[in-house]
Amino acid sequence: MFLEMPFDDIAIGACWTSRGRTITETDIVLFAGLSGDWFPLHTDREYAATTPFGARIAHGMLVLSVASGLIPLPVGRIVAFYGMDRVRFTRPVFIGDTIHARAEVVEKTLREDGRGLLTIFEEVRNQRQETVAVFTARILMQR
Amino acid sequence: MFLEMPFDDIAIGACWTSRGRTITETDIVLFAGLSGDWFPLHTDREYAATTPFGARIAHGMLVLSVASGLIPLPVGRIVAFYGMDRVRFTRPVFIGDTIHARAEVVEKTLREDGRGLLTIFEEVRNQRQETVAVFTARILMQR
Amino acid sequence: MFLEMPFDDIAIGACWTSRGRTITETDIVLFAGLSGDWFPLHTDREYAATTPFGARIAHGMLVLSVASGLIPLPVGRIVAFYGMDRVRFTRPVFIGDTIHARAEVVEKTLREDGRGLLTIFEEVRNQRQETVAVFTARILMQR
Amino acid sequence: MFLEMPFDDIAIGACWTSRGRTITETDIVLFAGLSGDWFPLHTDREYAATTPFGARIAHGMLVLSVASGLIPLPVGRIVAFYGMDRVRFTRPVFIGDTIHARAEVVEKTLREDGRGLLTIFEEVRNQRQETVAVFTARILMQR
Amino acid sequence: MFLEMPFDDIAIGACWTSRGRTITETDIVLFAGLSGDWFPLHTDREYAATTPFGARIAHGMLVLSVASGLIPLPVGRIVAFYGMDRVRFTRPVFIGDTIHARAEVVEKTLREDGRGLLTIFEEVRNQRQETVAVFTARILMQR
Amino acid sequence: MFLEMPFDDIAIGACWTSRGRTITETDIVLFAGLSGDWFPLHTDREYAATTPFGARIAHGMLVLSVASGLIPLPVGRIVAFYGMDRVRFTRPVFIGDTIHARAEVVEKTLREDGRGLLTIFEEVRNQRQETVAVFTARILMQR
Repeated sequence: MFLEMPFDDIAIGACWTSRGRTITETDIVLFAGLSGDWFPLHTDREYAATTPFGARIAHGMLVLSVASGLIPLPVGRIVAFYGMDRVRFTRPVFIGDTIHARAEVVEKTLREDGRGLLTIFEEVRNQRQETVAVFTARILMQR
Repeated sequence: MFLEMPFDDIAIGACWTSRGRTITETDIVLFAGLSGDWFPLHTDREYAATTPFGARIAHGMLVLSVASGLIPLPVGRIVAFYGMDRVRFTRPVFIGDTIHARAEVVEKTLREDGRGLLTIFEEVRNQRQETVAVFTARILMQR
Repeated sequence: MFLEMPFDDIAIGACWTSRGRTITETDIVLFAGLSGDWFPLHTDREYAATTPFGARIAHGMLVLSVASGLIPLPVGRIVAFYGMDRVRFTRPVFIGDTIHARAEVVEKTLREDGRGLLTIFEEVRNQRQETVAVFTARILMQR
Repeated sequence: MFLEMPFDDIAIGACWTSRGRTITETDIVLFAGLSGDWFPLHTDREYAATTPFGARIAHGMLVLSVASGLIPLPVGRIVAFYGMDRVRFTRPVFIGDTIHARAEVVEKTLREDGRGLLTIFEEVRNQRQETVAVFTARILMQR
Repeated sequence: MFLEMPFDDIAIGACWTSRGRTITETDIVLFAGLSGDWFPLHTDREYAATTPFGARIAHGMLVLSVASGLIPLPVGRIVAFYGMDRVRFTRPVFIGDTIHARAEVVEKTLREDGRGLLTIFEEVRNQRQETVAVFTARILMQR
Repeated sequence: MFLEMPFDDIAIGACWTSRGRTITETDIVLFAGLSGDWFPLHTDREYAATTPFGARIAHGMLVLSVASGLIPLPVGRIVAFYGMDRVRFTRPVFIGDTIHARAEVVEKTLREDGRGLLTIFEEVRNQRQETVAVFTARILMQR
């Protein structure tokens, strides 16, 4: 995986696709409890049935959190998870959907402090290869 | 809180500050397990002691997730959590820090489908009023 | 919600109805683990099928605990959750049922220490508006 | 333990004392997440330090829930956990306190349907033998 | 149960059968998060469907862990859980299966330090009485 | 890591050492709840203080479970986790200890069904490089 390579060796355009993970009712209940976000679209079956989605869906932040775990950062060269840009939730994730993440290197910047800033475009897809979320991650690396 | 008002009544510049929540070791362990992100800066005390941070810190995504729960979305007018822009993790959150979130309305856009897109600048601060994360949230509302 | 008002302004007979929450298999498994109550009516599908209920049901204490979260106590005026009287579990809550809580002020007492004791009758109902639990909560408030 | 005996053999005045369990920060965080009760006296260290308690305390419902697990109901004769009367939270439970429960049979009633209603007075104590909660449990048994 | 007897009174061949516990999707998700074992046979529904098992199965270590909880060790005489021999996972445990454990005393050894080493053969079975795991546990006891 | 190689290429004596993970009070509380094993040496601080260990220690099965997650099985060639032999818990793991796992290939056997049985000796060590548990894992692989 490209994150295991030294910053200078990582090629723009390098790609990596993760394993899958099924999003369960348990994940949604646990995330509601951990985040404190009880919005009824995620936690009330009766309410969710009355929305255009028709059923409970995963929190957007849960989808991002799972994606962050699917793309493991190797120890050693990573300094910090710096931030994200243009995070968009493009489709609902329902209970039982299986998502995976795809990461592509889109930019490399040398910073004045000698570190490298890696820009990665990440796409989260479900089992039908539909994109459910996209974002651009910024990761600070040692050189 | 401004999210409880109709879209047309929400004023640019309206602000709201949440209650606080202490980030515990438990939150970090639960988030590692739920996200699958076991980066040792969050889960290995010995490793974390060797980094510039000096101790385990909360995952950036955990801080965002807790912030999303501290700013509750009211039922009725909210259509969807649309996305985020310029998410930045500006300071570490250590075990025992107490964070709260501050939200300010920065933009309102009418969409062609008749819905309103609300842009909110959110700042997460610790008990010393230091900013630990910032992001711009986009929320789709009924009018 | 009446608990956000000063003690002296709260009217006998004031009512409030909460959002709903679906009780999932996850909630029952988590509650068994947290409470240590593994009574097989809650945790053994085969055993539960042989009882008059016919299926696993939620712990009574889980129903009460969820109810306590559905009726949020505002910060500032609440001194303590003093106690409960006449707690009765009147119908089973099955996996997938969605419950909400209804609170009604039934009594206000001034205590010698100058604080107010608020007595609230709470009713927990499922999605068919059947009462599954009732209790009388006693809340100590600043005046 | 008296609950393992047939209803007719249980003596008024029979007592049983449970093992102990330490209430951890984890229990409070998990209970906040499961119940949805984020009252800051339980979840905000800074706020709790400003109250007469001086530190975060366990939710009253968590104390009851743990007590219900410390006094295991045997399979076979128990029909249902019928309800509770006069639940009182008499002292705070702090993180690190170790509680146990003591149960004493105070009443036996034969119901018209041929079942027995057992009334048990329960006392939850901490490691200094101070009473932190009391309640009267009603349990319906086969004869 | 034989573990509640003094070491010298425990008979070779003594048996005990536990209550049952249904293995839920929640248990598998929680165990993946607690152990960090995300092998897709346990966590990816799509992948699991392509294996000979045809569906997600419980981690072997989860089955052992649940078995250890089904056979409670009494306080007082137990010094330590010393180890296990010949642990074998003989059949898959699927979501919804209900397992119980059966323990049989197969050996008693007096150690030079005056303690007793009890050897117990444990069998975990599902609701169809099929054996899903076996192991031999070694428990160190006071005499 | 050797498990990522084809069975025929794996060398006897090949070694791999995992990242570390700090065992927290949270892990012990979660494991007690998931396994149902409330033995007071793990869950009662007062009791644990009276034992030779002097403080609460992690469940042996928790140590094994964490070890199983520290040594990830790659998808594709692994058929099943077949079993373990000679599992021994050699030292206590206290809250705050950081453990890692070391795996060494000790045997390869061709089975009649054409599959390979890999025997791995695993050692779990704490931050002082003391061995806290050992076991021999048997893993069934495709060839």
